[in-house]
Amino acid sequence: MNVRSFVTRLAYINTTSPGFAFRYSHSTSKRLPNSRTKIDTNSKMSSATTSVPFDRESLESVLKRRFFFTPSFDIYGGVSGLYDYGPPGCALQANIVDTWRKHFILEEDMQEVDCTMLTPSEVLKTSGHVDKFADWMCRDPATGEIFRVDHLVEEVLESRLKGDKEARGQAATTPASGEEKKRKKKVKEIKAIKLDDSVVQEYEEVLARIDGYSGPELGQLMEKYEIVNPATGGKLSPPLEFNLMFETAIGPSGQLKGYLRPETAQGQFLNFNKLLDSNNSKMPFASASIGKSFRNEISPRSGLLRVREFLMAEIEHFVDPKDKTHPRFHEVEHVKLRLLAKDVQQDGRTDVVELSIGEAVSSGLVDNQTLGYFIARIYLFLTKIGVDKNRLRFRQHMANEMAHYAADCWDAELQTSYGWIECVGCADRSAYDLTVHSKRTNEKLVVRQSLPEPLSIEEFQVELDKKKFGPKFKKDGKRIEEYLTSRSQDELEILASELAEKLQITVSVDGIAAPVEVGKDLIAIEKKTRLEHIREYTPNVIEPSFGIGRIFYSMIEHNFWIRPESDQRAVLSFPPGVAPTKVLLVPLSNNDEFKPLVSQLSSIFRRRGITSKVDDSSATIGRRYARNDELGTPFGVTVDFQSVQDNTVTLRERDSTKQVRGSIEDVVAAIENMVSIDGVSWEEGTKGLQPFDSVAE
Amino acid sequence: MNVRSFVTRLAYINTTSPGFAFRYSHSTSKRLPNSRTKIDTNSKMSSATTSVPFDRESLESVLKRRFFFTPSFDIYGGVSGLYDYGPPGCALQANIVDTWRKHFILEEDMQEVDCTMLTPSEVLKTSGHVDKFADWMCRDPATGEIFRVDHLVEEVLESRLKGDKEARGQAATTPASGEEKKRKKKVKEIKAIKLDDSVVQEYEEVLARIDGYSGPELGQLMEKYEIVNPATGGKLSPPLEFNLMFETAIGPSGQLKGYLRPETAQGQFLNFNKLLDSNNSKMPFASASIGKSFRNEISPRSGLLRVREFLMAEIEHFVDPKDKTHPRFHEVEHVKLRLLAKDVQQDGRTDVVELSIGEAVSSGLVDNQTLGYFIARIYLFLTKIGVDKNRLRFRQHMANEMAHYAADCWDAELQTSYGWIECVGCADRSAYDLTVHSKRTNEKLVVRQSLPEPLSIEEFQVELDKKKFGPKFKKDGKRIEEYLTSRSQDELEILASELAEKLQITVSVDGIAAPVEVGKDLIAIEKKTRLEHIREYTPNVIEPSFGIGRIFYSMIEHNFWIRPESDQRAVLSFPPGVAPTKVLLVPLSNNDEFKPLVSQLSSIFRRRGITSKVDDSSATIGRRYARNDELGTPFGVTVDFQSVQDNTVTLRERDSTKQVRGSIEDVVAAIENMVSIDGVSWEEGTKGLQPFDSVAE
Repeated sequence: MNVRSFVTRLAYINTTSPGFAFRYSHSTSKRLPNSRTKIDTNSKMSSATTSVPFDRESLESVLKRRFFFTPSFDIYGGVSGLYDYGPPGCALQANIVDTWRKHFILEEDMQEVDCTMLTPSEVLKTSGHVDKFADWMCRDPATGEIFRVDHLVEEVLESRLKGDKEARGQAATTPASGEEKKRKKKVKEIKAIKLDDSVVQEYEEVLARIDGYSGPELGQLMEKYEIVNPATGGKLSPPLEFNLMFETAIGPSGQLKGYLRPETAQGQFLNFNKLLDSNNSKMPFASASIGKSFRNEISPRSGLLRVREFLMAEIEHFVDPKDKTHPRFHEVEHVKLRLLAKDVQQDGRTDVVELSIGEAVSSGLVDNQTLGYFIARIYLFLTKIGVDKNRLRFRQHMANEMAHYAADCWDAELQTSYGWIECVGCADRSAYDLTVHSKRTNEKLVVRQSLPEPLSIEEFQVELDKKKFGPKFKKDGKRIEEYLTSRSQDELEILASELAEKLQITVSVDGIAAPVEVGKDLIAIEKKTRLEHIREYTPNVIEPSFGIGRIFYSMIEHNFWIRPESDQRAVLSFPPGVAPTKVLLVPLSNNDEFKPLVSQLSSIFRRRGITSKVDDSSATIGRRYARNDELGTPFGVTVDFQSVQDNTVTLRERDSTKQVRGSIEDVVAAIENMVSIDGVSWEEGTKGLQPFDSVAE
Repeated sequence: MNVRSFVTRLAYINTTSPGFAFRYSHSTSKRLPNSRTKIDTNSKMSSATTSVPFDRESLESVLKRRFFFTPSFDIYGGVSGLYDYGPPGCALQANIVDTWRKHFILEEDMQEVDCTMLTPSEVLKTSGHVDKFADWMCRDPATGEIFRVDHLVEEVLESRLKGDKEARGQAATTPASGEEKKRKKKVKEIKAIKLDDSVVQEYEEVLARIDGYSGPELGQLMEKYEIVNPATGGKLSPPLEFNLMFETAIGPSGQLKGYLRPETAQGQFLNFNKLLDSNNSKMPFASASIGKSFRNEISPRSGLLRVREFLMAEIEHFVDPKDKTHPRFHEVEHVKLRLLAKDVQQDGRTDVVELSIGEAVSSGLVDNQTLGYFIARIYLFLTKIGVDKNRLRFRQHMANEMAHYAADCWDAELQTSYGWIECVGCADRSAYDLTVHSKRTNEKLVVRQSLPEPLSIEEFQVELDKKKFGPKFKKDGKRIEEYLTSRSQDELEILASELAEKLQITVSVDGIAAPVEVGKDLIAIEKKTRLEHIREYTPNVIEPSFGIGRIFYSMIEHNFWIRPESDQRAVLSFPPGVAPTKVLLVPLSNNDEFKPLVSQLSSIFRRRGITSKVDDSSATIGRRYARNDELGTPFGVTVDFQSVQDNTVTLRERDSTKQVRGSIEDVVAAIENMVSIDGVSWEEGTKGLQPFDSVAE
């Protein structure tokens, strides 16, 4: 198991979709539709369409200028893979998280926990992370440079294929802006060298399978294709496994090794008994956790999509393995989803089917109701916060992507200029996690359920004459006893017939050199019936796991567009419920006359919990609106000379730039109705207000 | 500077109050009032008083049973200093943070940022943490045990003083429950040995000054008083400095050393320019950050009060050093506070004065308006979330506690069974942080302000004949030029007269062996007048810094009491605004008849954003109320047979156990009015409802 098999539970593994034959990597972003169509699914505001092509550089420039986020430690030169969120980014993130909390935790009465990030090594050893949570890297001994092997092989082969195209006189791919620039650092130039047709085909096959190679296999590819340091031509070391967890020492002795958690799930599993108790022992139930996790990426890239410190929100829904129905499934069964099934992918295609989740579950495409319920709830959450439903699909994991214990797994993928990005994972992890921790700690992590009627169980039982055991086996007695009492039913059946036949059994016990003979005077193995009043079982876990930073970035891309008419002005059409600031307050000018009204409005909004910002700078109204369109502020309230006369103000809608006018009370009431996450549309919200011909912006 | 001088900025340094002569350590908790008086300042609910003495063990048992928090990795044996928050703890913490965000960030339009915890070493080297953020530890070479030196000296001398009292036949101190038990692990028994009177006095003096000793001084004390491993009598190593930051390596090379941040402040300083820009370059303004920080404590103790991973909320208010007035000071100037001034402490006393913050600032006790404004706002925040105002004081730092650059510093301290706990620090840090980072990175971190009228400045200016400089000085030319153009005004005055007198100047330049002579043909130094249109300054910083975990624990203690009448039932009287769950829904029994009404009520509360929980377990109503009193749920709504008839329900208040009855609409409306952080009182909220004689609980 290498890091790939953790895909089932980590929303964070791949920027590019894993698997083969359907990959959309950064270099294929040209295939994406490059005109943005804003779909009016959620914001309930007037839709806005534009034919100005999406350009990542324009978006990045807005995000930087408005301080949505920035490389951390920028004035010290930055550290790759670390980003700070500025005020609008912070507010947008907080609103997404708040919506998440309401949509999942409060709606479903989940048990929220906040566990520490510092985690002792032993816990992550048990979960498998210490041994297997790794990527492959190689080093250039001459320069000290380090490469992530799969990325390097991919880059070099892609550049050779490009060179081949050039040599054949075919149009070379225009590099996409951001990502390509960064990558140029490694593969600096494309050499126009024609390749044999068979080599081209070989390269393409390797690229299609790049996520599936083990470290040694990657090493063989490097040898075979003579892959060296692209900058210097220097030979590289063979691939080494690099564990992606940040290591530290807890306490002053330096003896207690710890890691920063790579996910929030473990804390929830370890607290299972307390959580069950806190839920009055009722099943099924879910716990949830929102917090930072850490992965020491070898070479972070793709902005917020692959970072070293990130916010996750994870749910662990504990369910009876014998009953995975969900009591509220009927509430979502009609929800239609775009599903990319595993068999379609295995055929090398990427066609989605559009099905209701009800159909998907009843046809067996989605394994069970509970998994289906959460897939639908994830869809409803994502579209609520402004994800474009036409750029959202659910992709099923193929057999080679899933861990052996997982029953079924679906990723919510969002389409961005970087390709389809895995943003939420939703996996049925069976009883794996609780079982391994329970085994390691000898702490039972089970549900005990009173049976309505006792169950009669017929089984082989072992009885030992303990008084004779000690004198006969001396110090080995205990070990032999443990061995005999921990046999499975199948083993006992064989031992029982051996005992009946030979009047003794011969067993090999770990730690005792010679075979051990136990005679009929010491042991009885017989089939007996006992009544079971309690059913004890380890619950299965359905785990929806959200990468908040990836959702944050993808939904920003989905909501970014450029007004074609006026000076290419950028707009971020966030739904009002998640927009960083809800209302912009604009006095017509810096005139003192406007101040009392502006501050009265500020305080009204504050009291109602609606965030507002005053912009009383000397810029023109148009410029001030433009600034706030870039911040995604959905509503603007203008105070002018008439306002001072009659207490009316104008209200502007960001996407359409439509304006209406009304009394302060009516405008505030209209905003209040439109601004929540379930608010009404602009048309609905402002139908009582007067249309207002705005001055050209 | 050792860790103590960071006290000015870190709310996290001392469990016991630092300084001397007024310490309330754990061992003096007996001096605390041991009957709880619930003061009706904030909850606006009926006050409840009790004479059942506070007992930390009862509280801890409730907090554990109700899963407010638990040692992390409990089933693996736990790791000291790490705690997980369970569902009620998580909700209580979220409500405290949410109130904080509204009270500070939204109310004051602060610029919130979310910066990474992973921090490269260079940043923390500049801030001083790499060199000086340390405590002193010593090791027993025989057993490998590690002790925090100041704590060990304190414990040993205290135990000897107790032994002396026993020997003198004086009443020995009854150990306080929790803390004393833990400490017994180190000093296992008190030996009744009489000490000389002079030794007793010496010990008491040392204990009074224990927080003020340097490492070598602590080493001398250990030698002098023959302090050894209390368990074994083994000799200990001399004190070693132990840096309290968790270290890790960022990236695959292992070359980039990083730490987990010990505070959230640095990220705010580093982003200063972007924050100023994001505030449209207006001054003054504040940034704020809420997030986890980390300190690798040598031996964590006192539960949530000294932990290794903790939630902080920090504000950096940037202000013109020449104008520290605050525009909204008049809004708080009447707020009365209990202040413990530094001169009182220096006299060895702990008397607080009660003053309005207006008086405190105008008399000069508090350094300036902005600092005073935040002290008052901190008070309002703490009392709003349920801190007992009679167990809250503001303690001024004494000169020996403050960093050299700090202008004034006050801690909000909360009284608990562990003594007075520093929970919020509020410091005027002058321009220290921005200055050191700017110097290190050569990035200007300043405010540029257009002057209303240009300032005429008369100053010495240097003019060099650069054409002649090169030929004359060759490779040294640039260095000499830099030297001459970076002289201060005082130095230039001296050089000018030297030049006038000797027609040349002789200077020593770093990196050039021989003195350098520069003649009048190459240099002119003259007094000239220039007009300055822009004022450029480094802002000062006022920093309120909140330890959320400490506030969380202290406010729990302040709100915990026992009903004397009935079976010693425990209650947590949280204000409704921060209570984990607002409403308990209790059907009279498990009868199916009640289900539709209960689920209707659930959905009404959910829609209004009021958290509720259904308890339809088979326990008696009284037991279910009792369970929720322990969870601090302020309101209970009971659905009974009459409800099914006429849609009325009863509403119960947690502290008084009073009940009223009304229609569902009226009861929900009443709850809605009482439940927010600024909600109305029970009397006010329920005046339209019918009193209801409850069955005995």
